[in-house]
Amino acid sequence: MRRDVTARLHLTVTDPALLVLQIAVAGAATSERLTLTLDDVVLDPPTELDAGYGGRSHALECPQGDLVIEYVAQVDGRRETPAPPLPDEIDRISALRPSRYCPSDRLLSTASREFGHLEGADARIDAVRTWVHDRLLYIGGSSKPTDDAVDTLLLGEGVCRDYAHLVITLLRALDVPARLAAVYAPGLFPMDFHAVVEAWNGSRWRLVDATGLAPRESMLRICTGRDAADTAFLTSHHGGVELTSMQVMAVVDELPREDPEAQVVLG
Amino acid sequence: MRRDVTARLHLTVTDPALLVLQIAVAGAATSERLTLTLDDVVLDPPTELDAGYGGRSHALECPQGDLVIEYVAQVDGRRETPAPPLPDEIDRISALRPSRYCPSDRLLSTASREFGHLEGADARIDAVRTWVHDRLLYIGGSSKPTDDAVDTLLLGEGVCRDYAHLVITLLRALDVPARLAAVYAPGLFPMDFHAVVEAWNGSRWRLVDATGLAPRESMLRICTGRDAADTAFLTSHHGGVELTSMQVMAVVDELPREDPEAQVVLG
Amino acid sequence: MRRDVTARLHLTVTDPALLVLQIAVAGAATSERLTLTLDDVVLDPPTELDAGYGGRSHALECPQGDLVIEYVAQVDGRRETPAPPLPDEIDRISALRPSRYCPSDRLLSTASREFGHLEGADARIDAVRTWVHDRLLYIGGSSKPTDDAVDTLLLGEGVCRDYAHLVITLLRALDVPARLAAVYAPGLFPMDFHAVVEAWNGSRWRLVDATGLAPRESMLRICTGRDAADTAFLTSHHGGVELTSMQVMAVVDELPREDPEAQVVLG
Amino acid sequence: MRRDVTARLHLTVTDPALLVLQIAVAGAATSERLTLTLDDVVLDPPTELDAGYGGRSHALECPQGDLVIEYVAQVDGRRETPAPPLPDEIDRISALRPSRYCPSDRLLSTASREFGHLEGADARIDAVRTWVHDRLLYIGGSSKPTDDAVDTLLLGEGVCRDYAHLVITLLRALDVPARLAAVYAPGLFPMDFHAVVEAWNGSRWRLVDATGLAPRESMLRICTGRDAADTAFLTSHHGGVELTSMQVMAVVDELPREDPEAQVVLG
Repeated sequence: MRRDVTARLHLTVTDPALLVLQIAVAGAATSERLTLTLDDVVLDPPTELDAGYGGRSHALECPQGDLVIEYVAQVDGRRETPAPPLPDEIDRISALRPSRYCPSDRLLSTASREFGHLEGADARIDAVRTWVHDRLLYIGGSSKPTDDAVDTLLLGEGVCRDYAHLVITLLRALDVPARLAAVYAPGLFPMDFHAVVEAWNGSRWRLVDATGLAPRESMLRICTGRDAADTAFLTSHHGGVELTSMQVMAVVDELPREDPEAQVVLG
Repeated sequence: MRRDVTARLHLTVTDPALLVLQIAVAGAATSERLTLTLDDVVLDPPTELDAGYGGRSHALECPQGDLVIEYVAQVDGRRETPAPPLPDEIDRISALRPSRYCPSDRLLSTASREFGHLEGADARIDAVRTWVHDRLLYIGGSSKPTDDAVDTLLLGEGVCRDYAHLVITLLRALDVPARLAAVYAPGLFPMDFHAVVEAWNGSRWRLVDATGLAPRESMLRICTGRDAADTAFLTSHHGGVELTSMQVMAVVDELPREDPEAQVVLG
Repeated sequence: MRRDVTARLHLTVTDPALLVLQIAVAGAATSERLTLTLDDVVLDPPTELDAGYGGRSHALECPQGDLVIEYVAQVDGRRETPAPPLPDEIDRISALRPSRYCPSDRLLSTASREFGHLEGADARIDAVRTWVHDRLLYIGGSSKPTDDAVDTLLLGEGVCRDYAHLVITLLRALDVPARLAAVYAPGLFPMDFHAVVEAWNGSRWRLVDATGLAPRESMLRICTGRDAADTAFLTSHHGGVELTSMQVMAVVDELPREDPEAQVVLG
Repeated sequence: MRRDVTARLHLTVTDPALLVLQIAVAGAATSERLTLTLDDVVLDPPTELDAGYGGRSHALECPQGDLVIEYVAQVDGRRETPAPPLPDEIDRISALRPSRYCPSDRLLSTASREFGHLEGADARIDAVRTWVHDRLLYIGGSSKPTDDAVDTLLLGEGVCRDYAHLVITLLRALDVPARLAAVYAPGLFPMDFHAVVEAWNGSRWRLVDATGLAPRESMLRICTGRDAADTAFLTSHHGGVELTSMQVMAVVDELPREDPEAQVVLG
């Protein structure tokens, strides 16, 4: 399997800011290039930071100007997820904790009522995926960046991150460790960065995508975290930044067929 | 400086559960002992897990019964905080992100209006500490475990974790990295586990305690995280557990005088 | 049918306050007596205010002291609800609007998904009552005065006002007018003020009690409103008041059998 | 003073719906005309309902089609507010209660801390108006229909209804009765329906507009209620309705100068 991805961001930096990018594929790529151009001048490469699970953040203090960020990568073959920054046990325990957009401590009653009768992590993962898929409408622009999984549940609609947050929140409330992965997703339409769930079934991290909008087999990990607070493709601090346009592209040499029933691991 | 601490928890386990304890002091102690007794039978020592920043979690699958947990430790001298699990830069970037009980993305407007005119991290840290101290009433039992910093701000009262969450949330909204530390706090009254803030001023992690209830110099770190979701002294999963009683003790050979103006680092 | 009710409130007024009582039965009683005693001195009768639907509020500016309020009434026979303060049409339109504890605009998606397929107001009323009954646990003291129906839905437990708020909220979201009635409820255990729902089925206001804790036939209306904000038995303004104890008593000469399926009108 | 107002709404009714309009001026107009045209056919006049305070709602069951609603009125001279539907005392007590978008029970601590030291209703009204004016940014489209005053306070921005809700909520939390009035506001830019506050200062209902966007002297009451849930210019039930465009016009023969310090009563 060969995957090719590109992300191109156009920003206007109105006040010098610290920018943190999470757009590079996790782990090593067969080939890749990250180019930042400010007012048509190529910048020095930004600092690359290990973000855990193979994820790589790029941080730079950026002066005022028009910034163009371009990332191009090619990845041949499937890859394993690198180890988490802490031992596996504590990593899984962390994945049970409530987080900003996944307040599992507020959905204990809902999760127990809907799924408490199911035995085993796999059955719970399958049921939660189907339930969220059936319960939400995918509507672009329907949610706000500050919405958490409770907001999504009440609203009944959202985008990929909202689907993922609701799945994660319900699973954690059921004592199933769950985390979020930002991915490139060949076959996704409309093409964009995508967000999916990794849920621990007792022996491995199953890839769960309640949107069902792209084949999971060919998804390519960018970064991994508790929820979207950890996986934003762009964050800015102490300055003024406007994202004026963005293009994401992800293709695979042969697009797999998606079978929602199949157990898949992100690779 | 010599510090002696003890924590004793009495639990009734009504359904076999995974218990995660975070009661051991971070890093190495001069001497320590963790004893678990189930229905008067001493259990094998639980698995010790590296939780980052020197923190150590203890996890055990516990059968039904009456469980008594006793931890006793002595620490001579001050200690440095061990390195975080990821590089310092990404650790500080993580400490800017909103988390479950510290939804900084919901207090951007409040933080900017109250503190946006202040230059420099130290000035902001000082102002936030004073503001939170003046604005909240410390009232035992006034808050709920699911309360976040917005709830605390509206309620106007809380306990140590609520003070810490509000400080952290405002600081992150001001682009000052901030995290929570659970500590033993000699001099605290009534004695209990305590929660304080570590805020990055550009060169070090300043210890901030808006409650002002104990001298910061002699506090002893237990564990470190984004908010109370990461630092609970006891968490249980997939079972039934009731905490029936708890005693915490922390003494120092010579209790320092607390000067809220002094810059202190947790040691 | 003869019903006898008594309410006795003991208050400590620490700062002179405006007190508003809603403890008298709506409409005319066969006999009744309201006595207020401050530090053992009988006060002048408070101002009686028409609160709509036959409800009567009693307001008094109360000085400092220990206040004892005693209300005793006997009602023979069933009674019709007096007309609302505004025409019936606008009254029913008002009963469709979201209110403080019944934010129906936040449960549109939930209501539509669960009940949208049902035709007719009666079917929706029956289904909502059963759903709320099955979904909540009645647990005294489980909710807070500021909880709204969304909080109740997430928490999965509550007391009579929480049951009523959730029923009202779902019905309004389904375009079924619904309002709250505070009542004396013979047969309720433990005895207390009770809160129930009146829902408009197209021809009359059906009495709905998702708690099922007392026969609806013998309930006696106190007051009527959008939610508990309108029907509190005691409200105080601009002063300091503490309710130190309270007794409520309600008996009927012959306690009816409650049939949850039967359509009942409050009388 | 002569005021001329016009409102023109274009709706697409995709499913037969109950429509409730609140666009007519309260009380008697010197002249007025309400015309409804469905697919170019003039409809029978809708039912006019007394909504209290002189307000008049118009309700109609509307079949599918393109509906054009046009209201034109002229009012000569200032007018008094008609009496509320219930006695003045209970009306003022109602105006102290929390409501859907004005959850005063959640801002007790904030109100007390900011304004609790002020004596007298007038001082509190003035201070709250200034505080809200200074604290919010008026940004069209910045808020959602489900936002309440707590959301507005946190967000720091909003439109006229958000300003009004926050003023009302703080005043009620301070035991100052406050309610919302929808008005035509000559001089408002951009022209639209406007929302303002009426606050009881102990002897009359002062008109408060924290936006300061139009002179209060020439505002013309449409309807009056607890918050925007009561005063929507258009509500639809059990059907499908889309508002495709809307024009509002309000002029006065001589535009007064607005003095925010002056005490004004809506007339």
